[in-house]
Amino acid sequence: MIDITGQSCIAGHWFSPEGSKFQSFNPYNKTSMYQFASCGADDIDKAAKAAGKAFQAYRKLDGRTIGVFLNTIADEIEALGDQLLEVCDSETGLGLVRLTGERGRTCGQLRAFADLTTKGEWVQASIDTALPDRAPVPKPDLRRMMRAIGPVAVFGASNFPFAFSTLGGDTASALAAGNPVIVKGHPAHPATSELFAHAIVSAVEKCGVPKGVFSLLQGMGNELGTGLVKHEVIQAVGFTGSERGGRALMDIAAARPQPIPVFAEMGSINPLFVGPDTLQAQAENIATGLSGSVCMGTGQFCTSPGIVVSVANETFETTLKTKLSEAPRGYLLNPQIAASLQAGLENLNNHPQLEWLNRADFEAGSMTPPNAVFKTSGKNFLADKTLSEEVFGPVTLYVECENEAQILEVAENLNGNLTASVHADKDMELAEKLFDVLEQKVGRVIYNGYPTGVEVCPSQQHGGPYPASSVSTSTSVGVGAIVRFARFVAYQGTPDDLLPDALKNDNPLGIYRLVNGELTTASI
Amino acid sequence: MIDITGQSCIAGHWFSPEGSKFQSFNPYNKTSMYQFASCGADDIDKAAKAAGKAFQAYRKLDGRTIGVFLNTIADEIEALGDQLLEVCDSETGLGLVRLTGERGRTCGQLRAFADLTTKGEWVQASIDTALPDRAPVPKPDLRRMMRAIGPVAVFGASNFPFAFSTLGGDTASALAAGNPVIVKGHPAHPATSELFAHAIVSAVEKCGVPKGVFSLLQGMGNELGTGLVKHEVIQAVGFTGSERGGRALMDIAAARPQPIPVFAEMGSINPLFVGPDTLQAQAENIATGLSGSVCMGTGQFCTSPGIVVSVANETFETTLKTKLSEAPRGYLLNPQIAASLQAGLENLNNHPQLEWLNRADFEAGSMTPPNAVFKTSGKNFLADKTLSEEVFGPVTLYVECENEAQILEVAENLNGNLTASVHADKDMELAEKLFDVLEQKVGRVIYNGYPTGVEVCPSQQHGGPYPASSVSTSTSVGVGAIVRFARFVAYQGTPDDLLPDALKNDNPLGIYRLVNGELTTASI
Repeated sequence: MIDITGQSCIAGHWFSPEGSKFQSFNPYNKTSMYQFASCGADDIDKAAKAAGKAFQAYRKLDGRTIGVFLNTIADEIEALGDQLLEVCDSETGLGLVRLTGERGRTCGQLRAFADLTTKGEWVQASIDTALPDRAPVPKPDLRRMMRAIGPVAVFGASNFPFAFSTLGGDTASALAAGNPVIVKGHPAHPATSELFAHAIVSAVEKCGVPKGVFSLLQGMGNELGTGLVKHEVIQAVGFTGSERGGRALMDIAAARPQPIPVFAEMGSINPLFVGPDTLQAQAENIATGLSGSVCMGTGQFCTSPGIVVSVANETFETTLKTKLSEAPRGYLLNPQIAASLQAGLENLNNHPQLEWLNRADFEAGSMTPPNAVFKTSGKNFLADKTLSEEVFGPVTLYVECENEAQILEVAENLNGNLTASVHADKDMELAEKLFDVLEQKVGRVIYNGYPTGVEVCPSQQHGGPYPASSVSTSTSVGVGAIVRFARFVAYQGTPDDLLPDALKNDNPLGIYRLVNGELTTASI
Repeated sequence: MIDITGQSCIAGHWFSPEGSKFQSFNPYNKTSMYQFASCGADDIDKAAKAAGKAFQAYRKLDGRTIGVFLNTIADEIEALGDQLLEVCDSETGLGLVRLTGERGRTCGQLRAFADLTTKGEWVQASIDTALPDRAPVPKPDLRRMMRAIGPVAVFGASNFPFAFSTLGGDTASALAAGNPVIVKGHPAHPATSELFAHAIVSAVEKCGVPKGVFSLLQGMGNELGTGLVKHEVIQAVGFTGSERGGRALMDIAAARPQPIPVFAEMGSINPLFVGPDTLQAQAENIATGLSGSVCMGTGQFCTSPGIVVSVANETFETTLKTKLSEAPRGYLLNPQIAASLQAGLENLNNHPQLEWLNRADFEAGSMTPPNAVFKTSGKNFLADKTLSEEVFGPVTLYVECENEAQILEVAENLNGNLTASVHADKDMELAEKLFDVLEQKVGRVIYNGYPTGVEVCPSQQHGGPYPASSVSTSTSVGVGAIVRFARFVAYQGTPDDLLPDALKNDNPLGIYRLVNGELTTASI
């Protein structure tokens, strides 16, 4: 068992920050628990300098060594045993079943990136050999690959305390690409972050990688995050959270003397479209599936389906209402989210064109919200842009359209989203039109499915046009996330000895390379 | 022969803008020539709406059809014949030899992108097949590829009136990815832009692609560009020019309600490092090569070598001075660049720690500047950040260091650059240290060469850390430039009929795809 001390950690060194105090909160019994303190400007500077120094050695480690490091981090997370699950459950109310699954996913991510760096192919090596006799000018030898960019600041997310927080996907991908990471721990689960820091510090020691590759700075308020993004050593930012928070970081990063990229995964209402004939045929099934997706994680998923768009159907409406009302209430992560959901539900309830189909109490201070479904017409939805804004929690809005044309109009008027789902087995013409529109609006189009449950694999795309994410082409899930934290460097006319292994003549890594335009594993 | 009318062109429709008038300028005889007028807000809106509409059809064209279109544009450029070369020469003073070469490069780029889209592999298709029986949850079928992002605004560059202007690399790559383009023509070569617009309008007609895929808006001043970047239809920006101009567009784009990426290729001083023993052995050779690189295009290349860093060497200094003074003076592109170079040379000349080794007159109003070399010590260079700023023109600064350690220190203190060159055949230990530093600072490291002459091939990287470019990982030269104007979209559980060809089961395009993690051309 590890003592939760409330300390932060810079490059393996634990210390008690001197900033304002805060405590973690137990949503089950609404009591305060462990005490923490916020890091300040000096701590940011120390962590950044340690990261900058560590980068000089870490960036040059071979992919196998980084792979061993990432695998060891996963092992050390598992070695934290039940303490990690119990501490996190007490800070988040997410439950042991979900957290056990999320731990598996988190370690799985680290191991997937370990496989990726061990294989070494992710650098997209490309070689064009010289043509010294070409007229009018000789063609030089040019070779290009991705290299690490430098220290990365990662902002932990409240809703995925494992998979998108201290040692989640952003940290794993930044480390995999060869960059040190400074994590701003999420203040809603600081003890969980502290345990994770122990895991990686232990892995750093076992693998002998430079200590400055990881620091955890705990803190409340905006100053810590702002200071981190502004620090000249930081070369990129990973963030998962609200549109407001993400945009604030984007604006700060864009205003730096040297602007840096912010990879923010933000708000999304994840519309689900159902064709009229399909709804007729599968009303109960789809209502049941949708209800399960809305309630999952108490609606606190970035892919939670916030609107369902179809025509009128009584069976669907009744089933959806009943299933949501019958589903057990879950716990919200923290009082801020509870208060914000309270306000969101009140707004929707007071909206003159909205009907709360299964109205239920949600008294102030409660951490267990009702699973809510509202209804409005397609016309009203189209008339009010605010209805396209995310309400974070187990809430969905049934947009009842007049016909297929109006369903399409709703699709055409969507903002950027992470996902859109289409159920249209009996409406294939509509499905085709919807896909045409939706693939322009979202990162992932789902057929006959529900958006929650984000598979971690190379073909995953978790990210979409703004405001779903800040850089629409990048993904924060799946091994494709690694390219966010690397950039291409070309080497011209360079002797073999000065080239990275991925570009050397005899292809010592045995990777696929684009040689004079053709993919091959051959030597030069 | 095409009449130069001074009109702009929206979606194939030629019209006379109503904004302020301007004329193109002949640097050879300093006379004004063709008359133009600036487009306004209404013109921007019309071009954007036409682009938005065209996008809906153009984005779905298959790669072969886009390839034919790009090849036809190249053919139509060639069909403009000598008129294009002569008009452009009269507007830029670049000379027919250079412009003939640049035309070849421009058509070569278009044809390279045609090959790319015809082959279809650039979309990075990836497929992970379903595991319906996986426990605890089934694995869905996921497929991912790059898709076009939407209308792109391209800002023509003054220094490459063909290769980086109206139908240059930005336009070619945006069109190749499936996006309409609106070009803001550079006011220093408007007649050249007008001729190019005729070429693409003709190609649009011959190929039957939607007319809104191309518009040319001519104009002076900042309003046109600002309005274009702010327009909600525009989804990305391509720019080649000054740091000041690029940063202004970055700031505007970042402040939009929906921020969009700006791919700006900006300032760079392209340092050239020479090891002490290598300088000793090859002083004359390197001075001669460097002089040629400095004078190329009257120093108006983004890769022009603005500083050379080594130790003291009299032969080198004398040869460099002599070669630069003996080289014929070239013409500058326009009076703005001439005035700015005049001011730049005066600043350098007045700098107390700088010596102008081959001081020569450059009277106000002249379009033919001296080929200048200044000298300072490593210590003075390190003490004054302003000496790292680009002076656009045939100017280089010899930074005379005390020893290898100081040479390295100069490298470590560099800002982001497009390129860095290393001559160190007799200083391999230093070369290794320099490569270690420089690959963190630049997009392309060159061994035993000079930075001018940017080969167009898949392994080229033209772009580097800020301020060399706005998005350090992207390249504006080579077929890799296409990914700037596309984003990944994933399709989950989607029937074959609804999938793009690149992701269909039987691989109708016959392209390499990452199937369950392995590259293959096999069917599913």
